[in-house]
Amino acid sequence: MTLDLSSYMVRTDLAVELKEMAEKAEGGPIPGLVEDITEHDGIKITRLDVQSEEASNRIGRIKGHYVTIEVPGLRNQDTTLQEKVTRDFVKEFSAFLIKIGISSKNKVLIVGLGNWNVTPDSLGPLVVENSLVTRHYFELAPDQVSPGYREVSAIAPGVLGITGIESSEIVQSIVERTKPDLIIAIDALASKSLDRLNTTIQIADIGIHPGSGIGNKRRGLTKEILGVPCIGIGVPTVCYASTIVNHTFDLMRDHFNKEGGGNSSQTKQILGLLSELSENERLGLVKEVLSPLGHDVIVTPKEIDEFIEDIANIIASGLNAALHEAVNGDNVAAYTH
Amino acid sequence: MTLDLSSYMVRTDLAVELKEMAEKAEGGPIPGLVEDITEHDGIKITRLDVQSEEASNRIGRIKGHYVTIEVPGLRNQDTTLQEKVTRDFVKEFSAFLIKIGISSKNKVLIVGLGNWNVTPDSLGPLVVENSLVTRHYFELAPDQVSPGYREVSAIAPGVLGITGIESSEIVQSIVERTKPDLIIAIDALASKSLDRLNTTIQIADIGIHPGSGIGNKRRGLTKEILGVPCIGIGVPTVCYASTIVNHTFDLMRDHFNKEGGGNSSQTKQILGLLSELSENERLGLVKEVLSPLGHDVIVTPKEIDEFIEDIANIIASGLNAALHEAVNGDNVAAYTH
Amino acid sequence: MTLDLSSYMVRTDLAVELKEMAEKAEGGPIPGLVEDITEHDGIKITRLDVQSEEASNRIGRIKGHYVTIEVPGLRNQDTTLQEKVTRDFVKEFSAFLIKIGISSKNKVLIVGLGNWNVTPDSLGPLVVENSLVTRHYFELAPDQVSPGYREVSAIAPGVLGITGIESSEIVQSIVERTKPDLIIAIDALASKSLDRLNTTIQIADIGIHPGSGIGNKRRGLTKEILGVPCIGIGVPTVCYASTIVNHTFDLMRDHFNKEGGGNSSQTKQILGLLSELSENERLGLVKEVLSPLGHDVIVTPKEIDEFIEDIANIIASGLNAALHEAVNGDNVAAYTH
Amino acid sequence: MTLDLSSYMVRTDLAVELKEMAEKAEGGPIPGLVEDITEHDGIKITRLDVQSEEASNRIGRIKGHYVTIEVPGLRNQDTTLQEKVTRDFVKEFSAFLIKIGISSKNKVLIVGLGNWNVTPDSLGPLVVENSLVTRHYFELAPDQVSPGYREVSAIAPGVLGITGIESSEIVQSIVERTKPDLIIAIDALASKSLDRLNTTIQIADIGIHPGSGIGNKRRGLTKEILGVPCIGIGVPTVCYASTIVNHTFDLMRDHFNKEGGGNSSQTKQILGLLSELSENERLGLVKEVLSPLGHDVIVTPKEIDEFIEDIANIIASGLNAALHEAVNGDNVAAYTH
Repeated sequence: MTLDLSSYMVRTDLAVELKEMAEKAEGGPIPGLVEDITEHDGIKITRLDVQSEEASNRIGRIKGHYVTIEVPGLRNQDTTLQEKVTRDFVKEFSAFLIKIGISSKNKVLIVGLGNWNVTPDSLGPLVVENSLVTRHYFELAPDQVSPGYREVSAIAPGVLGITGIESSEIVQSIVERTKPDLIIAIDALASKSLDRLNTTIQIADIGIHPGSGIGNKRRGLTKEILGVPCIGIGVPTVCYASTIVNHTFDLMRDHFNKEGGGNSSQTKQILGLLSELSENERLGLVKEVLSPLGHDVIVTPKEIDEFIEDIANIIASGLNAALHEAVNGDNVAAYTH
Repeated sequence: MTLDLSSYMVRTDLAVELKEMAEKAEGGPIPGLVEDITEHDGIKITRLDVQSEEASNRIGRIKGHYVTIEVPGLRNQDTTLQEKVTRDFVKEFSAFLIKIGISSKNKVLIVGLGNWNVTPDSLGPLVVENSLVTRHYFELAPDQVSPGYREVSAIAPGVLGITGIESSEIVQSIVERTKPDLIIAIDALASKSLDRLNTTIQIADIGIHPGSGIGNKRRGLTKEILGVPCIGIGVPTVCYASTIVNHTFDLMRDHFNKEGGGNSSQTKQILGLLSELSENERLGLVKEVLSPLGHDVIVTPKEIDEFIEDIANIIASGLNAALHEAVNGDNVAAYTH
Repeated sequence: MTLDLSSYMVRTDLAVELKEMAEKAEGGPIPGLVEDITEHDGIKITRLDVQSEEASNRIGRIKGHYVTIEVPGLRNQDTTLQEKVTRDFVKEFSAFLIKIGISSKNKVLIVGLGNWNVTPDSLGPLVVENSLVTRHYFELAPDQVSPGYREVSAIAPGVLGITGIESSEIVQSIVERTKPDLIIAIDALASKSLDRLNTTIQIADIGIHPGSGIGNKRRGLTKEILGVPCIGIGVPTVCYASTIVNHTFDLMRDHFNKEGGGNSSQTKQILGLLSELSENERLGLVKEVLSPLGHDVIVTPKEIDEFIEDIANIIASGLNAALHEAVNGDNVAAYTH
Repeated sequence: MTLDLSSYMVRTDLAVELKEMAEKAEGGPIPGLVEDITEHDGIKITRLDVQSEEASNRIGRIKGHYVTIEVPGLRNQDTTLQEKVTRDFVKEFSAFLIKIGISSKNKVLIVGLGNWNVTPDSLGPLVVENSLVTRHYFELAPDQVSPGYREVSAIAPGVLGITGIESSEIVQSIVERTKPDLIIAIDALASKSLDRLNTTIQIADIGIHPGSGIGNKRRGLTKEILGVPCIGIGVPTVCYASTIVNHTFDLMRDHFNKEGGGNSSQTKQILGLLSELSENERLGLVKEVLSPLGHDVIVTPKEIDEFIEDIANIIASGLNAALHEAVNGDNVAAYTH
C-alpha cells in the first residue's frame, strides 16, 4: 500500500522532517529521494534531492533540491559559531546560484515574507532590513557602481491580515515592473520538532508554496507564478501544540522500543493503541481532543526575540556575501545592524 | 495515603491548576480548600481560600487567598471585553486592600518583576511603565498633591541574568529606604494549560515565592522577607513543552473515559499504562524522553507581542483605579499608553 | 518683482507654512489663495485653497485643497483631546471623499510611506498596521461581507534605502493589479517650525509630490502617475537644524519689531543686516556656516516614540471611521492597537 | 572681573564644551585647567584636568579628571571604526581604574540611568543589558568562578517619572546592601553642539551630578553620597532648540570675524548687537522669544534608533573588556547583543 503523504496533517514546512516521517511510515528508504549529509563543528548539512514524482508524492513536496543546515548550538548565542554557520550558508547558497545558472550580472529581488510586528513571523522583514540593496544606484548611474556589486532590490510585502492583498500578488506586480532574474523569498516556518526551532535553515529551489510559512499563504511564490526562478529560504520558528504532543508520542515509542530491545510488546503495554496508530491517525486523535478546548495554539520559544535576530543576521550576512563579490568575510558585518 | 504535592513536578504557578491536580489525585475535594466561583460575560472568577496546613500541603501552596480571573475571549483583542475585565479586576483587587487593612493613606510600592527584553517575561516592567506614580510629588510638596491620590512608587528591578542581583534583594533595599505599607508584585507565570496563557490573571495575598515566575527566583517577595504585606499579581505567559504533553495525556484520558461512559478499560486499551500512572510519574517519563533531545523548551503563543500589551494594560489601568480614588472609569485610559 | 517661491530653500512640507512665508515676502495676501480658519477646544483647522497658477507659483505648491489641523495640546497625551481630534479628522477627511466623488462602493488603497525602523519616519507603516483592511474578504466571498464595510487594502512599501525601489514604483505596480478607485498616502513630513512637530495633520487632495517627506522621494504619488486620485495625509515629525535657526531669526525680528512699536531701526540695531535679508538669503547664510561643520542635522523631539504612536492612532482610527460606515465613535478603538 | 560660569544657562553636560565657552568668555586659557589632546584615525581624545577651585568655578564643573572621545565618523555605522573606538575606550577607561586604585579583586556596580522607552534616553539601560554580570556566580559558588572574571553587578533604576523614586536613592539602597567598591554610572547627556550628538563619549571620575543628563536628576551619584568612588560615562544624545540657535550665532560670528580678517566691524554690521552680547545674555534673548511659543523643545537626530544602539554597544563591549581580564578583543562581541 502506498500512503499518500501529500494529505499529511502533521504541520511542518521542513523537507527533512517530511522525509523522516515518510520513511517511518514506509519502514525504509523512499525511492527517488537522494540524500547527502555532512557534519562538522556541530553543524549538520543535509542535501536532499526529490527526484521522482513518486518520491514527491510520498513526502508531499514537489521535485527539487532542498538543503537543510541544522545547528542545535545556535541557541547559545555563540558569535564564533554564528560566523561558521554564515560561511556554510554562503557556500550552500552559492551552489544554488550556480545550479540555477545565475551569473554576477543577473538581477535579484529579495522578498521578506511575514509580519514585522509578530516576533516569530518577522524573519523575512528582518532579513530585508539587513540586506545590501543596490538597484537604485544601478538605476541612477549604472556606470558609477563599483565593481563587485550586483543589482539587488528587496521588499517586505506584509501579510494578508494587514494589507488585504496576498503577498504573492504584491510580489508578482513588482516582478512585472522591475524584471529581476531571480527571486529569493525568506519566510518563517513551522516544524514538527521543537528542537529545530530557530536552529535550522532550509534552502530550496522550489520557491514558496501555498499554505507554507506562519502566515498560511493561499498562493505561492514559484517559477510558474512569477516567471523567474525562486529560491526559498526558511527557518522554523513555531510549532503547533498538537504537533508537539504527537511528536512526543513518537519519541516515546522509539524510546520504549529501544529499551525493550526492539520488542514492541512492552511499548504497546505502556502506550496502548497509540503505539500502533499511524502518525496521521494519532494526530487526528490529539487534535480532536485539543482543538475544542482551545489548546491547539501555535507556540514559539520564550527567547524568540533574541533567536530571531541572530538567525536573521546570519541569513542577511550570508546573502550579502553570496550576492556581491565585493562583500566578504572581512566586511560582511558592516552591512547588517 | 496522603500524596505530598509540594514536590509535584508539574510546572504551574496557578493555584487553580494545583487544586485541580490535587483533587484529581485525591479523587475528590480537599478539606481546607474553600472555593467560590462566579461567571458572567465570559469571565470566570474563582476565589480560593487555602485555610489549613493540610490543604496547603496537598496543593503545594501556602495558606492564603487566591483569586483567579479567567477570560478565554481576551485573545480576541475585544476592547469592550477588556474594559469589563478591568472593572472586575478593580473590584477583586480592592477587596484585597480592604482585607489586608490598607487605607487610602497607606503608601504602595509596585514591583514589576521580569525582563523587558524577553516579550513573555515583560509583563511586570510593562505594568510599571503604565502605573500612575505619585511618590515624588508627595516628597516634594505633600500639601499640593490633589485629593484622591495615594502615594505610589514603582520599580522594575530586572532579572538575575542581567543584574547579577536577586530582584528580591533589590526590592528589600528599596523597601528599607522608602518604607511602603504594601508591596504589589507583578510577574509573568507558567501554567500547565495552554488555554490559560494570556487569558488568566491571578491575585494572591501571599506575595511571590521562590521558584515561581519565568525567571525562577531563588528568593521570594513575602511579608516574612519584606516586613510588609505583599500582594502578588501574575499572568501565565509560558508553558513547558513537557507539561503541555503531559496535560494533553490527561485531557485524552478524560476524553476516552467520558466516551467510554466511565468505563476505563477502553481508555487503557488506547493509552496503555500511561492512563494508570499518576500525573507526576507520567511527567517524569515525558521529561526523561524529551529533555536529552533538547525538546523540553519553554514556549509562548506566537501572538505574544500583542497579548502581553493588552493584559498589562488591563492590570495597570486596574491598579491605577483601585489605588487612586481620583482615577475612575472615565479617565483611567489617560494614564496608560 | 514677483519672487518665485518654488525655488524656496526653506524645508517644509506644510502648505500653511509656505503661505505664511509667501505672505511675509510679499508683504500681504496672495491672490488666488483662499483660506478658511475655524478654532475650538484648542484645535485650529485651516482650509486652504490654492486656486490659481499664480498662487501656486508663489507658495511653491500645486493647485488644490489643503486642510491643516493644528493641536498644540497633542503633546500632553490627553486622551480626551485625542478623541476630539479624531472626530475633526473624520469630518475633514470625509469632506475630501465627497469632494472627489468617492462613494461607499469605491475601493481604497492606503499607502503608508516611510521606514518602520526610524521612529520619526514610521508614521505611514504605523497607520497601515492599524487600518481595518477588508479586500481579502471581498475577494474570497464578497456576498458574505457585512454591510457597512468598504473594500480597503493597505501597503507599507518601505524606503528606497531598504528596498532599492522607489515607493512610487511599488505603489504603481500594485495599483495596476488591484485597481483601487482612490489612494490615501500617509507620510511623515518636515516643517520649519518646531512647535508644529507631532501636533499638526495636513490633508491634501494633491497626493504626495517628489522631494517631500522625510525619505525625499524622487517620484511622487499623484493622479497623473497613478491614474486614480490620491489624498495625501502628512504629519511633520522632523526639522532641519538650519531651518530651526532661520525660523528663530524670524521670530526674533518679529519680536523686536513689535517691542519697537513697528519701528524697525531698533531691530536692525540688534539683529544687524540679518534683519533685512530675505528668509531665503538668510537661510543660505545659515547653511553656509552650519553645513561644513556637520551641524545641519535633521532633528526630532526627544519624546518621538510616544508622540508618533499617538498621532498614528488618531489617523488610523479616523480613516477606519471615515471609510467604513460600520465603524463609529463607539467601536473605533477596537480596530487599532 | 571673574565671570561665575556655574550659573551658565547654556545647557551642556560636556566638560569640553564648558571649557570652550569659558575660554571664549575670558579671552584666553583658564588657569588650573590642564588639557592633553591626541588624535588618530578620526578619533580625538581630550584629557582634561580641572585642578583648582578657580578653574572649577570658571567652567562650572567640580575638580576632577574628564576624558572626552570625539568621533564624528561614528554616524556612518562603520564597524571597523567602532572597533577602534572600543579599543580606545578600553584604554582610557582602564587608566581611570588604575588612577582610582581599583584592582581586579574589587567589586563593581554598573548603573544605567535613563528610560528604556525614550530612545535618546535609553543609553544607560542598553549598556546594562549588554554588560557581563557575574555577581550571582560569586554569591552562589565563588570557588567555581573561572579566573579572569571580576564580580560585577548592574542595575537600570528607571526614571523619576516612572518610579516616583530618585534614581540616586535606588542606587544608594543597593550600594548599602551589595557593597561594591566602585560605581560606574552611564547616562545620556545634553550638549550644546549638534555635531557632538552620538559621536562623543565622556568619562569622568566625578560621578553624576544633580541636574545633569536628560532626566534632570535632583540628586547625584557621587562619592559623597554613595561612599564609594563613581565614574560617570556619558554620551550627548539631545540638544535644546535654544542652545542650537545660540550656538549657531556663535558659529556665524566666528565665521564673519574670520572672513573679515579679524575686523569685527563687518560682523557687527551683519549680526548687530547680537555679536556683542555674551553667550549667556544672547541665550536669554533667544529663550525669551522661543519659550512662550513652545519652540524650545529638546531634540535628537532623526536616526537616533540606530545611533544609540551602536554607541551603547561600544561602551558595553569596552566595559566588559576593561573589567574582566578574560574578555579581550577576540571574544568581546560575544557578550553583547
